[in-house]
Amino acid sequence: EIRPLETESGEASLEGFDHYMLKEIYEQPESIRNAMRGRLDDENATAVFGGLNLTPQQLRCVERIILTGCGTSWHSALVGEYMIEDVARLPVSVEYASELRYRNPPIENNTLIFGITQSGETADTLAALRETKRKGHRTLAICNVVGSSIAQASDGGVYLHAGPEIGVASTKAYTSQCCVLAMLALYFGRLRHVSFESGQRIIEELKQLPAAVQQALACDEQVRDVAKKYQNASTVLYLGRQYNFPTALEGALKLKEISYIHAEGYPAAEMKHGPIALVDEETPSVFIIPKGSTYDKVMANMEEVKARGGPVIALASRDDPEVESIADDVIHVPNVPGFTQPIVNVVPLQLLSYHIALLRGCDVDKPRNLAKSVTVE
Amino acid sequence: EIRPLETESGEASLEGFDHYMLKEIYEQPESIRNAMRGRLDDENATAVFGGLNLTPQQLRCVERIILTGCGTSWHSALVGEYMIEDVARLPVSVEYASELRYRNPPIENNTLIFGITQSGETADTLAALRETKRKGHRTLAICNVVGSSIAQASDGGVYLHAGPEIGVASTKAYTSQCCVLAMLALYFGRLRHVSFESGQRIIEELKQLPAAVQQALACDEQVRDVAKKYQNASTVLYLGRQYNFPTALEGALKLKEISYIHAEGYPAAEMKHGPIALVDEETPSVFIIPKGSTYDKVMANMEEVKARGGPVIALASRDDPEVESIADDVIHVPNVPGFTQPIVNVVPLQLLSYHIALLRGCDVDKPRNLAKSVTVE
Repeated sequence: EIRPLETESGEASLEGFDHYMLKEIYEQPESIRNAMRGRLDDENATAVFGGLNLTPQQLRCVERIILTGCGTSWHSALVGEYMIEDVARLPVSVEYASELRYRNPPIENNTLIFGITQSGETADTLAALRETKRKGHRTLAICNVVGSSIAQASDGGVYLHAGPEIGVASTKAYTSQCCVLAMLALYFGRLRHVSFESGQRIIEELKQLPAAVQQALACDEQVRDVAKKYQNASTVLYLGRQYNFPTALEGALKLKEISYIHAEGYPAAEMKHGPIALVDEETPSVFIIPKGSTYDKVMANMEEVKARGGPVIALASRDDPEVESIADDVIHVPNVPGFTQPIVNVVPLQLLSYHIALLRGCDVDKPRNLAKSVTVE
Repeated sequence: EIRPLETESGEASLEGFDHYMLKEIYEQPESIRNAMRGRLDDENATAVFGGLNLTPQQLRCVERIILTGCGTSWHSALVGEYMIEDVARLPVSVEYASELRYRNPPIENNTLIFGITQSGETADTLAALRETKRKGHRTLAICNVVGSSIAQASDGGVYLHAGPEIGVASTKAYTSQCCVLAMLALYFGRLRHVSFESGQRIIEELKQLPAAVQQALACDEQVRDVAKKYQNASTVLYLGRQYNFPTALEGALKLKEISYIHAEGYPAAEMKHGPIALVDEETPSVFIIPKGSTYDKVMANMEEVKARGGPVIALASRDDPEVESIADDVIHVPNVPGFTQPIVNVVPLQLLSYHIALLRGCDVDKPRNLAKSVTVE
């Protein structure tokens, strides 16, 4: 049974949680379910969207996609790039909205631009969409707030239906964005080369998501212990490859936003080209290393950090003795296919930043210097 | 008069400098001149390259470019993206080599791939070039070491002629890479829509570069004073927009590599989506804010950091009273067009990291945990 989340922002209450951020982290199995509700079409093995305002014929002509946004939404754009290129084999570029609006890049015909934003009011994303629309490109919005400026300024779009997000650090809106992008990957894939059977398999994988996220939430106690151990760190590295690279960026951003610890994410292999110079006994590294492709490569990077005396926190699949033997601390994540890993693996990292911020006495829901939505440049 | 730099690595000597890194920073007017020697064709208002091994007819058919590399070379790829899209109106994608080699993205026909590397031996860049070549795409190298593995594995390429780079933190190879990318932007532009007159103007701008970099080096004393003031920072933000965004990333990487201070670069507007939470009295921000496009926008970001009590170091044009009145410290850079700003503005940031590392007693030429060229994954 699902409770309705479509309440007005003012009505949102803590419902027994200490903070909105924690409540919103815990709402994710439900908000993801809401993002998918009515959008998975078993019969046709595809996804359906009501508000794209473009016909399948028009969407078949799309030859390239630009995903743009700011902050956390820029990270979901990176996730979307990996998903859409992987599943739909449609080339994707990701642009910082603040750069896109001024830099006037060459954009090919048949390029579709998506603006991604929780609030629908982000000034740079709105301006980037308007500028590309002015040039005659089709623009769509992926946003949470119904009737927002960006929803109105674009040709169409997809709502997240995540319910009001009050915590300044975005959590459930992020996973819902990723979930919508996964469904778009399925949809564009099915317009192109993805078979009926493959479409069905992807739908099954997406349907597992709420349960997998629920399972990921079970690490809360474990994460709290890890948080206690590392709460005094002044710098933290987050490392992952492929589908887990944007998760590294997002995990680092969460910690930065609410605990004021300087955390930074990198594709794991970039470490050797500079960041590893920061590694010493005081500098923990978080490795996202579930079973799957590039597992061995991330393992090699992890061993290198260990060899240099850096503490290692690993997000790993259950029953991975190899990781257990190397990492100082292991947080277990459920085993899901690479494609849906970004949505599941970010959950423990949201909790990690929450607990560390709490232990440091920070105002979790209203971090210093930050606003919930950035409506000025 | 130019001294020959084409010596063997073993022969390189300090020539009176305290460190190779400092020597290489000071060699940049010369290494840039060497990168351009014989490649600027006044008569045809274009650039010429001996080793592309592709005819102008073949290069005219290029519809998209992928630039790939690791670390500092990935930053020059970002600079190249802005240059080539701006001047040649040819769409460019930038890829981390370590991600590209495994993620199998859809690559359109008529895409040309450039691998950028100082050593020519970077394992991930070599593997990424081989993988794209295997798929039938044309691959070119931009590298410094003649006869290196990547030079041999690619279909052709451009040598930097920067002479041996001994300091682990790349300086002159970076500016030479940017300079080669600027000439490639001119070349591709002239194959397409750039007029004879515009080509001549770009050549004139490029010819000013060695003198402008020489002028930028004059800030050394000034930078040393700034270094003294901020040597004990534990976190530093680097912020810039458009052509100065990759410079922010590269400036931060230099500081990270040799001083072990956690520095991070961002497009200036992204600041409000998270990083500004780090700002307090102890956390300096370096703003790259020369006169030119988006000057006002960067100014607004700078004022916001000031309002939150963060110390501000500004890289600004001479005679900019507005910046002087807001920033705590100003480092002057010569006024050059946006297109060549990345090559000039990075120089004071190289010096800043050098002086801070020196004051902190770090081994500038051989920073901990890092190797000059990363020949394993």
